[in-house]
Amino acid sequence: MKPRRALGLVKRRGLARRALIELYLAGLDGRGLLLDELSSSLGLDEATCKALVAGLVEEGLVEHRGDVFVLGQKGRESIRVVMTGGVFDILHVGHLATLEAAKGLGDVLVVVVARDETVKRLKGREPLNREEDRLKLVSALKPVDKAILGDPEDFLKVVELIGPDVIALGYDQKHDEKELRRVLAERGLRADIVRLNIHVPGVKSSKILARLLREI
Amino acid sequence: MKPRRALGLVKRRGLARRALIELYLAGLDGRGLLLDELSSSLGLDEATCKALVAGLVEEGLVEHRGDVFVLGQKGRESIRVVMTGGVFDILHVGHLATLEAAKGLGDVLVVVVARDETVKRLKGREPLNREEDRLKLVSALKPVDKAILGDPEDFLKVVELIGPDVIALGYDQKHDEKELRRVLAERGLRADIVRLNIHVPGVKSSKILARLLREI
Repeated sequence: MKPRRALGLVKRRGLARRALIELYLAGLDGRGLLLDELSSSLGLDEATCKALVAGLVEEGLVEHRGDVFVLGQKGRESIRVVMTGGVFDILHVGHLATLEAAKGLGDVLVVVVARDETVKRLKGREPLNREEDRLKLVSALKPVDKAILGDPEDFLKVVELIGPDVIALGYDQKHDEKELRRVLAERGLRADIVRLNIHVPGVKSSKILARLLREI
Repeated sequence: MKPRRALGLVKRRGLARRALIELYLAGLDGRGLLLDELSSSLGLDEATCKALVAGLVEEGLVEHRGDVFVLGQKGRESIRVVMTGGVFDILHVGHLATLEAAKGLGDVLVVVVARDETVKRLKGREPLNREEDRLKLVSALKPVDKAILGDPEDFLKVVELIGPDVIALGYDQKHDEKELRRVLAERGLRADIVRLNIHVPGVKSSKILARLLREI
């Protein structure tokens, strides 16, 4: 059976996009994917996956390098990567609503979780939950495709790694959008900056804690 | 193309199981699924999905009722449903590890989130986060297929609805396993009861709060 015929059977656009996303995410870890890794993450048998990838290589979206497949420049340009960040110390529905809105701005959402030392520097106290625990919990949320720890010295390092098309700022992130655009430009980075106006009354971590303290 | 041929192209067992799980989950809401609902949730085109479902109906796993498909008794018996529960007031990695372990005991994980009034009765204080917020956050976790609120008067009502093959108890759930087995049997319910021994040091909600209070 010819590749084109086999692909007709599956929702081609949706699967192709998911394949590009998987390859993008593997690229964040600096690696490509073997055919069987890709087929297992897409839930396809190897023959269907092979046909799918052959089509993507033919279109110049994916490159074959040795044993593995990697996302090509054109493939990268055909998906929209959204980046957002935060401390996520005590997870609440406000975080979730913000992450869902951020995910809605593109195809794949990468979340940068602030390092313990960054939190200490900015808030003057350690977070209640260690960075590796905050990372695990954020990674486990359905809208999040990948969560990574920030760089304690240079926050632009992760922006360079992720190469986002969109940077989504939550309502409690104090970045000045103009200033952010300027520092990005200095490093040759370009991304749309979107401020999400998700307000979920009464669920900020600090309010949850204040409520607790009133009760005790 | 004959159904059997089309199905050969996709990972049949995996997809069949996912179809049964989707039908089980719809059944919790008291409904069946239209063909296009099922194909969109499985990421398949309608022709492939139709062939898949035709096979499942032929095997007696799925029933066709009017416009919709529902899980048959034999289909229900071919998947393993795990149920667990908790308050999940301040979500932490201990909860996540427990939910992941619970999910590992079967094919589908349904989580019962305690009602506000149940928490008040058992712990003597309101939870910090309202039941609808706790429900949303638990629903958003990757290992969780479905979260539902408990019944404030009769906790066995949700057990009857879910009909679990396995009930997983977390380390801080005080149910006596023998007693639980007895009350289940009284209502004609049978499930394996598994106590999960997931200890993640220092991350119980109460410890996180105690740490906060020491700092303030």
